[in-house]
Amino acid sequence: MNALHGLTLNGPGRLVETPPDVLAAFATDQGPVLAYAEPRAVVWPTSVQGVQDVMRWAAATGTAVVPRGAGTGVSGGAHATGGCIVLCLDRMNRILELNAQDEVAVVEPGVINADLNAAAAAHGLMYAPDPASYRTSTIGGNVATNAGGLRCAKYGVTRDSVLALDVVLADGSLISTGQRTFKGVAGYDLTGLFTGSEGTLGIIVGITVRLRYLPVAIQTVAAFFTDFSTAAAGVLAVGAARVQPAIMELLDGATLSALDDAHGSSLRSRGNALLLIQTDGFGADAEADVVRRVLAALGGTVSTEGSVEAERLLELRRHSRGDAIAHQFRVGEDVAVPRSALVRYVAELERMAAQHRVNLKVVAHAGDGNLHPTFWVQAADDGGRERLEAALDESITVALSMGGTITGEHGIGQFKLPWLPQEQQAEVLELQRRVKAVFDPVGILNPGKAIPGGEPGEPR
Amino acid sequence: MNALHGLTLNGPGRLVETPPDVLAAFATDQGPVLAYAEPRAVVWPTSVQGVQDVMRWAAATGTAVVPRGAGTGVSGGAHATGGCIVLCLDRMNRILELNAQDEVAVVEPGVINADLNAAAAAHGLMYAPDPASYRTSTIGGNVATNAGGLRCAKYGVTRDSVLALDVVLADGSLISTGQRTFKGVAGYDLTGLFTGSEGTLGIIVGITVRLRYLPVAIQTVAAFFTDFSTAAAGVLAVGAARVQPAIMELLDGATLSALDDAHGSSLRSRGNALLLIQTDGFGADAEADVVRRVLAALGGTVSTEGSVEAERLLELRRHSRGDAIAHQFRVGEDVAVPRSALVRYVAELERMAAQHRVNLKVVAHAGDGNLHPTFWVQAADDGGRERLEAALDESITVALSMGGTITGEHGIGQFKLPWLPQEQQAEVLELQRRVKAVFDPVGILNPGKAIPGGEPGEPR
Repeated sequence: MNALHGLTLNGPGRLVETPPDVLAAFATDQGPVLAYAEPRAVVWPTSVQGVQDVMRWAAATGTAVVPRGAGTGVSGGAHATGGCIVLCLDRMNRILELNAQDEVAVVEPGVINADLNAAAAAHGLMYAPDPASYRTSTIGGNVATNAGGLRCAKYGVTRDSVLALDVVLADGSLISTGQRTFKGVAGYDLTGLFTGSEGTLGIIVGITVRLRYLPVAIQTVAAFFTDFSTAAAGVLAVGAARVQPAIMELLDGATLSALDDAHGSSLRSRGNALLLIQTDGFGADAEADVVRRVLAALGGTVSTEGSVEAERLLELRRHSRGDAIAHQFRVGEDVAVPRSALVRYVAELERMAAQHRVNLKVVAHAGDGNLHPTFWVQAADDGGRERLEAALDESITVALSMGGTITGEHGIGQFKLPWLPQEQQAEVLELQRRVKAVFDPVGILNPGKAIPGGEPGEPR
Repeated sequence: MNALHGLTLNGPGRLVETPPDVLAAFATDQGPVLAYAEPRAVVWPTSVQGVQDVMRWAAATGTAVVPRGAGTGVSGGAHATGGCIVLCLDRMNRILELNAQDEVAVVEPGVINADLNAAAAAHGLMYAPDPASYRTSTIGGNVATNAGGLRCAKYGVTRDSVLALDVVLADGSLISTGQRTFKGVAGYDLTGLFTGSEGTLGIIVGITVRLRYLPVAIQTVAAFFTDFSTAAAGVLAVGAARVQPAIMELLDGATLSALDDAHGSSLRSRGNALLLIQTDGFGADAEADVVRRVLAALGGTVSTEGSVEAERLLELRRHSRGDAIAHQFRVGEDVAVPRSALVRYVAELERMAAQHRVNLKVVAHAGDGNLHPTFWVQAADDGGRERLEAALDESITVALSMGGTITGEHGIGQFKLPWLPQEQQAEVLELQRRVKAVFDPVGILNPGKAIPGGEPGEPR
């Protein structure tokens, strides 16, 4: 039947069978699994009309719909929920338009981030948001989670590159929000409301993004420090020198050790912290000069101009996703704190790790105060998981106490829901529930994600 | 009584009298007046608690509340409506915090844009959004209208600098949205929803903004062209050279003549169009070199390096607001079109002006395709106003047909409401009405503004 693969809607509630291995494969994204449920079916629409057909059928049958791109999210936003169907948008993967003069692209939601960038590069342009998953994640998923990345401090997050959206609502109707122009203030910012709503307000089926100029020059600086505090002070010193780097990554000693283990390098012997900074654009060289001078003055061991190693280190950092290790349990975090709190916060993390007897490593998108601490224990460690959970919980609470947020870029999904009421007051959560009800009165759009309420079986 | 000036809430519905001249002065902002109404009273709270008191009283009495900053808006967003009270926030004008390390400021809504910038400059920082009214308009008003300005193409609009808001809701309760960090994706983007909502969803009483670095260098380039088309082609050529100017203003011949009349200059004799470009930051000099080369290659008469005149021309442009002229009727526009449509659109404007026998001048924030055409006729011109209205209407319709928007930065207010249904489909308008109802179920917050519906006396 029409544009649907894997599902034939030949009568209310009649699903064509999805093979068990497919059901299992599409039951989760890369987030921690809290409550396991396989979907009833997985469907792959290939057109807007196909998505509308699915939503009309879902609305008619009261079936929960979990939208999904490449499934690279790490907060469980695309986990299946009981009785749901998974709506997989990765076959809607056409770049519909790329207009170099207007500096915009119009894409289907399943376009891979890196593919859009490759197409844009042919015109000297780039799509700025660069989550770690950019080689595999979809623009639709990036928009649904308002994904961040390394270049945010200078170029902003996904929201800052999204101009307009086409969205299929819960009842199957199709709307357009925003405008093709860089500026526009007609009506409420529904484009921003859908961005980051994790599929709970509508299914994003078309995205107009603003492109930026590929930088004419790039400079990368690596600076090793004897301690993390001084490296973090380097972040503020670069700011005080009025340099806005495109990338500013901070790695602690344990992360350097982990990189050494994985790649046979000897980074850890060179310092207890590494600051990686990339400047770009017409001022890249001048900015890198200032960065090197500022960091050397703080006592850093700073790479020389045009250092190939600095670039290699940044590539290493960019692609060092924390892969699961069989004999370890680990939890990854995504808090953000005000920049001036970086040092204090990492000191607190170290105290927690010692106190709860868990291992810790920290990387940070330091330019915007976004930290990814990882706690881990050996699988054989008796009581290790409980201590891990205790450290995780404390790390989030302390970030909040410093004026931070529980999620800088990964989203609430299912995983972070328990902590959301610590960050947002009850009135704000209630407002969001009521906004959700405007868009999804029956509660079929990714229930139990992003905001409290609407979990399967929970009274609404 | 407590923190209110001009209003004593000593009983339901009992207003202390506001003097008639004050009622008249606060009946309108700078937008065209469609339906004249004086408020019942003007109140000046000086604290959040004071705003809450007003809203509780308004909710209890069903009184419409029109919030207002400096009243510099040009779309009638702060026009009084029948039976309303005007809630003037300009006495809540304290900068509560300016943290140079975190690069954030926390301000009350009545802080003047230029005052925040002066305070930030002391730390080498700036608040980037710079509407033409920056010397007199308030940050609260800037947020309520999601104000633009000259520097948007590089630094974004107001929304891009707002991190968090404190908002008093229609029932007098106080909520906080967003986060102090540059990144944060917890829950729906309510901060974005309030930004640009023109006081129809809540009263903004506290604003946390991100600050940017004051540029270490600035270069200004002025280029005169014999025709507007070539000047507009210069905008695209600068883009193709991968230079992102901080400012890129395009002025047509009629605007040059108007400047000559006002300032005794002779700009018009030097060309039929002027392109003013400012680059900033560490790459400013190199970028300006490229800009000068690119524009000279197109045949422009380009200012030399470090030209004092170029800077003076930009200052002239920045402060050349279209002051009312007694013997003329004029209408100002605020459409935005995709950058590649600039030339075609201005050609269409010229055709309309000729066809409707009205005068025309055009300035554009060309970097983001945002145009401010002004049509005018002599007051004594019989039938002139009708022809003016016809030209205005056509200019908006044609912008939409080119993929543009009816308002790039001024907002819908009251003035642009009639055209909103041409830009946004009925379903989108209905969604916005329902979102409004979530925040303001009784309809007392700036009724009849920003979105259709809720006009005084209109059934809801």
